[in-house]
Amino acid sequence: MTAVIDKVTSQSTKDLVARLLAKAKAEGRDSLTAPEAKELCDVYGIPVPQEGLAKTADDAVKLAEGMGFPVVLKIVSPQILHKTEAGGVLVGVKSADEARAGFQKIIDNAKAYDAKADIHGIQVQQMLKGGQEVIVGAVTDPSFGKLVAFGLGGILVEVLKDITFRLAPVSREEALSMLDGIQAAEMLKGVRGSEPVDREALATILVNVSRLVDEVPEIVELDLNPVFARADGATAADVRVVLDFNAKVQRYRPNEEEILEKMNRIMKPKAVAVIGASIEDGKIGNSVMKNLINGGYKGDIYPVHPKLQEVLGYKAYKSVKDIPGDVDIAVFAIPAKFVAQALTEVGEKGIAGAILIPSGFAETGNVEGQDELVAISRKYDIRLMGPNIYGFYYTPLNLCATFCTPFDVKGKAALSSQSGGIGMAIIGFSRSTKMGVSAIVGLGNKSDIDEDDLLTFFEHDDNTQIVAMHLEDLKDGRAFSEAAKRVSKKKPVVVLKAGRTSMGARAASSHTGALAGDDKIYEDVLKQSGVIRARSLQDLLQFARGVPVLPTPKGENVVIITGAGGSGVLLSDACVDNGLDLMTMPADLDAAFRKFIPPFGAAGNPVDITGGEPPSTYQNTVRLGLEDERIHALILGYWHTIITPPMVFAKVMVEVVEEMRAKGIDKPVVASLAGDVQVEEAADYLYQHGIVAYPYSTETPVAVLGAKYKWARAAGLL
Amino acid sequence: MTAVIDKVTSQSTKDLVARLLAKAKAEGRDSLTAPEAKELCDVYGIPVPQEGLAKTADDAVKLAEGMGFPVVLKIVSPQILHKTEAGGVLVGVKSADEARAGFQKIIDNAKAYDAKADIHGIQVQQMLKGGQEVIVGAVTDPSFGKLVAFGLGGILVEVLKDITFRLAPVSREEALSMLDGIQAAEMLKGVRGSEPVDREALATILVNVSRLVDEVPEIVELDLNPVFARADGATAADVRVVLDFNAKVQRYRPNEEEILEKMNRIMKPKAVAVIGASIEDGKIGNSVMKNLINGGYKGDIYPVHPKLQEVLGYKAYKSVKDIPGDVDIAVFAIPAKFVAQALTEVGEKGIAGAILIPSGFAETGNVEGQDELVAISRKYDIRLMGPNIYGFYYTPLNLCATFCTPFDVKGKAALSSQSGGIGMAIIGFSRSTKMGVSAIVGLGNKSDIDEDDLLTFFEHDDNTQIVAMHLEDLKDGRAFSEAAKRVSKKKPVVVLKAGRTSMGARAASSHTGALAGDDKIYEDVLKQSGVIRARSLQDLLQFARGVPVLPTPKGENVVIITGAGGSGVLLSDACVDNGLDLMTMPADLDAAFRKFIPPFGAAGNPVDITGGEPPSTYQNTVRLGLEDERIHALILGYWHTIITPPMVFAKVMVEVVEEMRAKGIDKPVVASLAGDVQVEEAADYLYQHGIVAYPYSTETPVAVLGAKYKWARAAGLL
Repeated sequence: MTAVIDKVTSQSTKDLVARLLAKAKAEGRDSLTAPEAKELCDVYGIPVPQEGLAKTADDAVKLAEGMGFPVVLKIVSPQILHKTEAGGVLVGVKSADEARAGFQKIIDNAKAYDAKADIHGIQVQQMLKGGQEVIVGAVTDPSFGKLVAFGLGGILVEVLKDITFRLAPVSREEALSMLDGIQAAEMLKGVRGSEPVDREALATILVNVSRLVDEVPEIVELDLNPVFARADGATAADVRVVLDFNAKVQRYRPNEEEILEKMNRIMKPKAVAVIGASIEDGKIGNSVMKNLINGGYKGDIYPVHPKLQEVLGYKAYKSVKDIPGDVDIAVFAIPAKFVAQALTEVGEKGIAGAILIPSGFAETGNVEGQDELVAISRKYDIRLMGPNIYGFYYTPLNLCATFCTPFDVKGKAALSSQSGGIGMAIIGFSRSTKMGVSAIVGLGNKSDIDEDDLLTFFEHDDNTQIVAMHLEDLKDGRAFSEAAKRVSKKKPVVVLKAGRTSMGARAASSHTGALAGDDKIYEDVLKQSGVIRARSLQDLLQFARGVPVLPTPKGENVVIITGAGGSGVLLSDACVDNGLDLMTMPADLDAAFRKFIPPFGAAGNPVDITGGEPPSTYQNTVRLGLEDERIHALILGYWHTIITPPMVFAKVMVEVVEEMRAKGIDKPVVASLAGDVQVEEAADYLYQHGIVAYPYSTETPVAVLGAKYKWARAAGLL
Repeated sequence: MTAVIDKVTSQSTKDLVARLLAKAKAEGRDSLTAPEAKELCDVYGIPVPQEGLAKTADDAVKLAEGMGFPVVLKIVSPQILHKTEAGGVLVGVKSADEARAGFQKIIDNAKAYDAKADIHGIQVQQMLKGGQEVIVGAVTDPSFGKLVAFGLGGILVEVLKDITFRLAPVSREEALSMLDGIQAAEMLKGVRGSEPVDREALATILVNVSRLVDEVPEIVELDLNPVFARADGATAADVRVVLDFNAKVQRYRPNEEEILEKMNRIMKPKAVAVIGASIEDGKIGNSVMKNLINGGYKGDIYPVHPKLQEVLGYKAYKSVKDIPGDVDIAVFAIPAKFVAQALTEVGEKGIAGAILIPSGFAETGNVEGQDELVAISRKYDIRLMGPNIYGFYYTPLNLCATFCTPFDVKGKAALSSQSGGIGMAIIGFSRSTKMGVSAIVGLGNKSDIDEDDLLTFFEHDDNTQIVAMHLEDLKDGRAFSEAAKRVSKKKPVVVLKAGRTSMGARAASSHTGALAGDDKIYEDVLKQSGVIRARSLQDLLQFARGVPVLPTPKGENVVIITGAGGSGVLLSDACVDNGLDLMTMPADLDAAFRKFIPPFGAAGNPVDITGGEPPSTYQNTVRLGLEDERIHALILGYWHTIITPPMVFAKVMVEVVEEMRAKGIDKPVVASLAGDVQVEEAADYLYQHGIVAYPYSTETPVAVLGAKYKWARAAGLL
């Protein structure tokens, strides 16, 4: 058995890798030969079959006899990548005669397939018997870098694309989680009398492969396909290693401390310059000035304009360089063509951040123009927000550094969007639902500041309890993942990844690469990073609104208490959809609930108190649910009746929840309200008092609770 | 090749089936033996391997040559049950010599294994070669009756439960649709160089199996596992037939004409009796009277009460039998224990329908009480609605035969719910969103009237354009499917099936049975019946509201026109999620759109008109989209700006849509509105004018459009 290799890669391994790479590069190859790949596997602790290279039929017989029949024969030629297609593979070769005949046949086939192919010989390989076929692979993603992949082998799996990814390198625990991360995970546990596979052996291969690709940047794709996983080990039958010697340009990536220092100045500025401040109604530079002033920002505001003396009562300056004091951010409200010059002045002035509202850069094809801004920003160490954004809001400072409408519903949710339209939807929704917000940030083209910078700021921002982000791509997925992993331990991070159904295929020369859909990588990495993924804009908004309202549950036991049996069924469906555990009701607790409900009501879970009950029945059962320590969260199903009207229900529920909070009992409670229009007012009242409630929906309250649970689990709080 | 068997089953086949069943029953067996199953397959055109019994080695050779090599040889001896153990099986017998030698070897082995064994001979069986392993099966569902199933063979498929069902019997077209109905459908089309399977041969087996189980009620489960599907045919390698001689009790099922006659009297009554009418506030019998009166019902209202002379100004009667004129429905508002007696009087009076509001029947375990009501209803031919319901509304008659609040928002959507709570949610939602409703019906325990009765009524009801149903089960799934198939050709039928995530496993003795999850059967049969399945309560309500607002599209080409690029991406995601085709923009149309949008905007699809545009840009591009005949539906993405405020956008859109309608151009248009709170008013305005619009959501407008498309396709209109 092969163990996880040492944490420190030995000099001899490094030398071997260097030699293999140098040879491939010298020969103009973009892949390793099979024998080279085997050498690499040997030093990286990746078990492969015994093998040898036969130059002649006699060689083949000798090698086969040495390792024992049956064997597999495979063509070795740098030009022939798809060996099976070329008739270059013979399996189950059982005797010396067969080996001799097979050697000749493969050589003939190879020549017929590609007359110019450079044939190095025939690889004779020990034939692996039995076990479950799996694939272990690695790919390089433009945003996330090296990823390791795992799936079952075989054509069916290819058709179903049942494969899972993790950022490389992976720990043993992460590797083990991959084995459970495929739909067909049960296959590995022994079905229909077959033995379970050796999970540790597979995890070891995954760890070692991830280490290999992480340490060797030139390996851009890798396939172990198939790996035979048995009850007592696992062996890779075939290894493919694809190389790329062109190094990727690195994105600017300051360290955490540097990010924080700059982001604090940007998000909480003491002084703001507005470049292109205007007195003309309808102009962006006018809207920005008005929003700063009318929003109630208490810091210094410096309009910058080439000709004006004053803008809306504030003294104007010809250039930011003329402003007497320190300035933290400059909001740009000038056409694209003037931005570079103004940015240079911003740099010379030592301003921390440029809020680049102007469009007309990469999004319109003007990549050069944007690159120029980035170059200036690096020269002067300015952080850029945008270009092509609406600006940003930071409500604790009453700061509306944007051309949109002012916003004043303060609270604990920080939101960002890549797109302006989505930003406006956030503003409208927040105002309409009274969702308290700490910040709304437009990221636009993300020439510099992106989600990981924001995450790092919000991580340390006491005014923020949840971060909800709309994004279309990640400029640096790895930096995002690192930040999200850290931040999500403290605060929920919700992401709506737009473009998730993108049909864009990726060019790939490996099998794993061909299986790697963009969205599957995002899905797995976001999960690995502790992020709650929103499936729709409404999810993003409702999670941002509801998750901070709920206290963190202390355990997995969820109980439904409902006045409508029908709601109970739909709420149960929603629990399953959202991965919530409906507690199996202990006999004593069941009996306790039964005391409060009519004899034809149903205890168990859901607790069906039946429709005609007075407020006291809701009160008694919910109090019991809150008091009993075995229950960790409640889902309420309300049914509008004359005997318990909506607002009566709402007030009674708030009363009992507050009574319990006063005793130090604080559990998440969500509610679904079925009834006439008065339930809307009742839902608002409940929400304002810490009970996440929705009218005419059984799914949304449970989805919000599910999001809270997902976060609590990922943060290790459950 | 075996063809689909004749439509008329021959007498000899019927005789064979009768003989096989009689023998099995006489022997107390609940399955057929392998030779019996083969006989059945032969007459029903289900290909199984050829086989014959050889008494001598010469026989064996002759048989093998007849069916073609390779063959399998198997000992036939009543004493040798474990044939392989006894050395009594030889596979892959390739020639006459091998057959001759094999015959002798098996005989020798058998004698050595058990000298006393009575050897009948050697079974020679055609050996099936290669191909794709699939499963064809049949199960009996308590609600749907006989279903035929199809899936791939092998353990992995079992783990993934990738199997599809149809009601038996199936047509050739339905059978072919099953081949595309599994996740792994691609496997049948030839992947990685393998040949595609013979789809017609598989369809023939499915058709014939479905015919067999349909014609023979005693066959409750059937497995062909595996079936080897090749490029030139398909053969079942193993057949298992499970029998049950206990006939199921039939539910009362009137014919369509009978249903319609009664349902017309019930839903559009000329006279209503209220049994248990009360003058006491808060009593159900009081609420029902008030709702009838205040709702504005113009027919006769007859309160029934043992003592009162008058209720709310209406003359009261001691019994329905005392009422002078004809009565169409009696609404029951009395305790459960009095219902049976009153129902008998209702029967004697010749009343068409009993609206059984009272609870305390099957839902509380009182199954006997409910059965008693059903027996009375059959005796007098009364149709029962309920028991355990809120009653029903039929707005064209201003009829509120219910104890809930009156309801007056008239329109074209008919809704039903199995649960009272969901009924109240329907009322609240409808009132809040001004969704026009023709009927809301509570079905409760469904002792008699159920979804197929309602469907049949709504099919012929000119006041109804869409039927939306919440249900937890179907008492007669087959009757529902037949009605839904018929009705959905004319009007959309939307179903929210609650309890869809039920974990309840079903007891099954066949392989197919074990794979049959309740929800998978509902999923497939609802689809087969042309039903649009709602995934959540909100879906049900929004589809009921939005689908009738949209005209039926004339083709699949959908175009997105958006002011916000970010919304465009999310709307595209939603299109993929909802199975909508984003049209590939023809060059001339692309050029035409470009004329209206800024140079940095993006044509193609989505058409991104960019954010800063005036109302005329929205107007011009939408007009073009409506005018061009190649485009069949539009999705609009609006972004709130100063230059095009929400209500300006809404009015301009309505203007252009109405201008086109006046010209006879009517295409479905939906809109997603991103902006500050004013977009809510704009969305309402758009909705009222036939454009399905939602604020802060990209997913809902597209889901509604998707539902319309699903219906149009199922109804054969596309």
